[in-house]
Amino acid sequence: MKRTSRDIRTANRYEVLRQIIAASPTSRQELAVATGLSLATVATLVGELLDLRMITEVGFEDSAGGRPRGLVAVDSAGGALIGVDIAETYVHVELFDLALNVLARAEEDVRPGESLPEQVVGHVAAAVGSVVAQAGVEAARVLGVGVSVPGQVDRDTGLSEYAPNWDWHDVPLLDLLAEHIAYPLYLDNPLRACAVAELWFGAARGHEDAVVVNLGTGVGAGLVLGGGLHRGVSNSAGEWGHTTLVLDGRLCHCGNHGCVETYVGAPGIMLNLRELSPRSPLLHPGDQTATIDALARGVQAGDPVAVKVVRDTARYLGAAVADLVNLLNPEVVVLSSWVASRLGEPLVLEVREAVARHALRRPLAATEIVLSPIPTDPVCLGAATFALEGALQSVGQRGPRRAAPAKGRTAPPS
Amino acid sequence: MKRTSRDIRTANRYEVLRQIIAASPTSRQELAVATGLSLATVATLVGELLDLRMITEVGFEDSAGGRPRGLVAVDSAGGALIGVDIAETYVHVELFDLALNVLARAEEDVRPGESLPEQVVGHVAAAVGSVVAQAGVEAARVLGVGVSVPGQVDRDTGLSEYAPNWDWHDVPLLDLLAEHIAYPLYLDNPLRACAVAELWFGAARGHEDAVVVNLGTGVGAGLVLGGGLHRGVSNSAGEWGHTTLVLDGRLCHCGNHGCVETYVGAPGIMLNLRELSPRSPLLHPGDQTATIDALARGVQAGDPVAVKVVRDTARYLGAAVADLVNLLNPEVVVLSSWVASRLGEPLVLEVREAVARHALRRPLAATEIVLSPIPTDPVCLGAATFALEGALQSVGQRGPRRAAPAKGRTAPPS
Ligand SMILES: [Zn+2]
Ligand SMILES: [Zn+2]
Repeated sequence: MKRTSRDIRTANRYEVLRQIIAASPTSRQELAVATGLSLATVATLVGELLDLRMITEVGFEDSAGGRPRGLVAVDSAGGALIGVDIAETYVHVELFDLALNVLARAEEDVRPGESLPEQVVGHVAAAVGSVVAQAGVEAARVLGVGVSVPGQVDRDTGLSEYAPNWDWHDVPLLDLLAEHIAYPLYLDNPLRACAVAELWFGAARGHEDAVVVNLGTGVGAGLVLGGGLHRGVSNSAGEWGHTTLVLDGRLCHCGNHGCVETYVGAPGIMLNLRELSPRSPLLHPGDQTATIDALARGVQAGDPVAVKVVRDTARYLGAAVADLVNLLNPEVVVLSSWVASRLGEPLVLEVREAVARHALRRPLAATEIVLSPIPTDPVCLGAATFALEGALQSVGQRGPRRAAPAKGRTAPPS
Repeated sequence: MKRTSRDIRTANRYEVLRQIIAASPTSRQELAVATGLSLATVATLVGELLDLRMITEVGFEDSAGGRPRGLVAVDSAGGALIGVDIAETYVHVELFDLALNVLARAEEDVRPGESLPEQVVGHVAAAVGSVVAQAGVEAARVLGVGVSVPGQVDRDTGLSEYAPNWDWHDVPLLDLLAEHIAYPLYLDNPLRACAVAELWFGAARGHEDAVVVNLGTGVGAGLVLGGGLHRGVSNSAGEWGHTTLVLDGRLCHCGNHGCVETYVGAPGIMLNLRELSPRSPLLHPGDQTATIDALARGVQAGDPVAVKVVRDTARYLGAAVADLVNLLNPEVVVLSSWVASRLGEPLVLEVREAVARHALRRPLAATEIVLSPIPTDPVCLGAATFALEGALQSVGQRGPRRAAPAKGRTAPPS
């Protein structure tokens, strides 16, 4: 039995801070109503957050006939969080205050042939150094750096076990990063980063069961089950991109045939286009972003080929999303990542129709399908949230993983 | 935030009773070690179970150098539980003592054309009356009756929302049953019954994340996630039988094409056989049980057609189980229900190979695939377990749903 009262306490601490971030300033009484926790529990958790200087007392409000109620708010200046999105062609880094406002951004291109772990780590270190310098934040105030890397990740050992796009196997990424970055580091993958971003700040907030479908070059589903992230026994849950939609269908880089990803990931959508219209001017060979943008513009303009490709893609995607609806019976399915945000509402409308054709009536009736409402890079936001969770989780426990002393750091040890 | 300290307390109460049932007699100290709970928590929960007369003090054991430790054991005579398995062609009822030993069994055939709700309810009432009489149990000692009915079930309203085999829609099954049965009633479906049976008494015991794959006429997956049953937002999670394996494949009674169930449910397996060898003597048209039995015997005897059909079925099943492995990353996948138990180890061996061809390395390495070790009807056992959980959950809460007074009861009101 692994779930303990400490886990519940950590989950409640998350929930109270989530609520304060969403509705600052607020009172303990309002927090108790919003979270369903007792006033005594809320008071204890608020006390802990005050001790951590993550929140601050900001005055009083009158309560009808009673004594004035103390108000608390996020202490934006109470610390900084950094989120790192390592993607196939870029490294994107954002620095946040504790209200999760972006204070600084940096981006480094990862050119083809520059994908050795040391090269990628160099880009991350440079971008992290840049955002800290831009924001003028003292090193001691950086609570942690969350790092998202595609593929299979072992959080405990900090290993990138398998990153398909670069064919990385068992890369000790956290150790490599720790040679350059002196802040507490938290490693995970974009599926879970996007899911935790939706859970804290997006469309999954307040839901028990939600699925965050990531549509990018790769495809996956971050799972929020029972109010928290479902990681699975070896932190590899969510590989919906590699579930079979078409038995004996398109060959996938994972070795299986007919994976969802081969039909609805950006390269799969390009193939859908090529199969429909091999010489279409919408097709930009070798350039996923340009092709998806061309499709998005084509749909806006009513171009029949673009409309048909989005419909075909939505047909695959609808069947595969219906699988998630039938299997998991979530309250909400959130479409996230760059392909979803670029194709936007026209894609969502087609997907909703396709899901309705495939799903069972009862779970279908319980599920909403929406675009991610998060306006910034959800992977950076989610990665930063892992750092925030790490800071909250470490209350009264052994500290998070810290870097060993090494040369070439971007910041002095705190 | 729906998970509360009361939920944790209920889950811990389940866990302690599970452990006592598994290892009676046992001490509070052993229970603390086995469950990971503190000795103080265990002592409180043991006290509650003693008050409920579900367990009893059975003496002392010496502890090296310390004072003797009190031993507790399940009080088998402390109550009776009834599990009802309503299936397509039969109603199967078992009465259990509190150690979940079967004390009495009754079975009624449901003939074609006898599938009106009132007719099925009549069979259930007769069989429940029979097991109580056979076991000679006082009505007041029956803690509850768990009822499993296929399809989509609303536990709270007691509605059978959709039972595909009989085309039932929105049948108020619990109300109909309550006119004849005076014990507390708990309604759910066989997916969840099998999952809870494995969680309490089978291959999922002690695991956080497990999938119980039901292979019968219908097909589904009961989900154990985070140490408890995952129901989804409207209690319809687990409809893996209606996830798409072959886009535009075989037509399913749910309206979708290419559902897993159409390839690996008993009728699907018959179709696999017919496609391979239309005039095979293994095929018993209209008789699923006889055909599956013939296949099982054929595989034992090395009949090449039988071997090939089981391999083809395992190929579909392996791809679909790999989807569960990739998506949920469970510790164990349990193959349950009558098709799995009749085809047995030869099926499991083929499925393991097929899953290995389709799943990603990391989740595959973390997952075992096993046959259900439960020797009796897992649906009856699981349904009875729902009644046991109901009795445990109602501690200090409002009582479970009780029948309204009515004529023709199988037992007097307690
Ligand atoms: Zn794949
Ligand atoms: Zn179906």
